[in-house]
Parts: sequence; C-alpha cells; structure tokens
Amino acid sequence: MALNDRQLDRAFRALTDSTRRWMLEVLLEHDATVLQLAEPHPLSLPTLLQHLGVLEKYGLIRTYKVGRQRICSIVPEPDALFAAERRLRSVMWARYGTRLGSIPEDYPRMRASVRVR
Amino acid sequence: MALNDRQLDRAFRALTDSTRRWMLEVLLEHDATVLQLAEPHPLSLPTLLQHLGVLEKYGLIRTYKVGRQRICSIVPEPDALFAAERRLRSVMWARYGTRLGSIPEDYPRMRASVRVR
Repeated sequence: MALNDRQLDRAFRALTDSTRRWMLEVLLEHDATVLQLAEPHPLSLPTLLQHLGVLEKYGLIRTYKVGRQRICSIVPEPDALFAAERRLRSVMWARYGTRLGSIPEDYPRMRASVRVR
Repeated sequence: MALNDRQLDRAFRALTDSTRRWMLEVLLEHDATVLQLAEPHPLSLPTLLQHLGVLEKYGLIRTYKVGRQRICSIVPEPDALFAAERRLRSVMWARYGTRLGSIPEDYPRMRASVRVR
C-alpha cells in the first residue's frame, strides 16, 4: 500500500476534529444519511456539511442520493486511513510494544452510535 | 486513560506533517540533538525549530540542554499518542478486523533512522 506523505497528511488532518472523528466512526460501522449524522450534534447543518465536505475531499467518504436523501458512506478502500493507522501503530510499537494492548476485547465499549431508522 | 477531545485533536494535528511524523519516529526510538534531527532534512533550522516547538507545545516531546547541545526527548508518558493510536485502531478494527495485520513482523522495515554520533 504505497501512499505518499501528502495522503498521510490528509488522513491525519481528517482526524484532527472530534466531529469528523465521530462521523468516521459512525460511517465505518454503517452508511448514514446526512440528517442521521446531524441529529446528535448541536452544530449547524452548514458546519456539518463542511466537515463531510472535508472527508469527501480527502477521499475518505463518498455521498450519493437515494430519492431525496443524501447517503454518506466510507469509500470501499480507505487506503489513507489504513496507512495512517499502520504508521501510528508501528512507530508506537517500536517503543511501547505490548503496552499498546489489544483492541478486540475493549472495542465494544468505545463504539460510536447513531440512531438508524 | 481519560483524554479529552482537545488532546486527541492535538495528537492528530502533530501527525499531519511529514517532518513532525519523522521527528516523532526518531524520538520514539532514541533521544536526539536538534542538529541530529536537522541534518537529514533540507528544511531551514527555523522551520525545524518551529516543528519541534509544535511537538513540545502539544506535550509530546520535551527538550533540555546538556552543555551547549539541546536534546529532544519523547515525554515519559505520551498519553495523547497512546489515545490517538488506540482510537484509530479501534475504529478501523470495527470494520476491517484482522485486515489491519500485525505490526511486529513488519516493523523493522519501516523504521526511521538518524545518525547518532
């Protein structure tokens, strides 16, 4: 998975905002409409659309229309996210090794959620 | 490890730049002088000092003087980096599970290096 530095920059940049992190967490679990993503947040719709625009511009999500609803979805192969995860884990592993712990046991407690109707 | 969103924002922001990623990779392996960090890079010293300043402001590294040399070092417990690594791995795990692969086998090939004299 050869990714240039610019793509890594963008993947990490996508993750610098808590709203965008939450959106990615939701969309990594399932597709969602813009309204589903907007509902749990106190942010204005334009602000949310701006965050979605950033994720789309960086190639991490795509959106498409079904009837009158706009659906958001993670791209089929989010290479930049894979590379960012791998890079961060490998450099941390070099120093801290098994202190990183394992995810599968802990994961369910950290899961993001959004109501799906 | 309870970390607020702002700390996570900062950890990911520290990682948005390839020079800072490289510095962190080196410093996670061993302490280095400013000059050792500067040498392999075509960047100006002020630019490098600015990147080191960002990492220090975000609480990821500290610097101290030994004689006339300034030494850079990862903080003893870089909680924000742990949290960022864990968050990214857990959300990716939710969807891709074992496709993330394991690091220890691959790590040595990806290691950053800097000459230590």
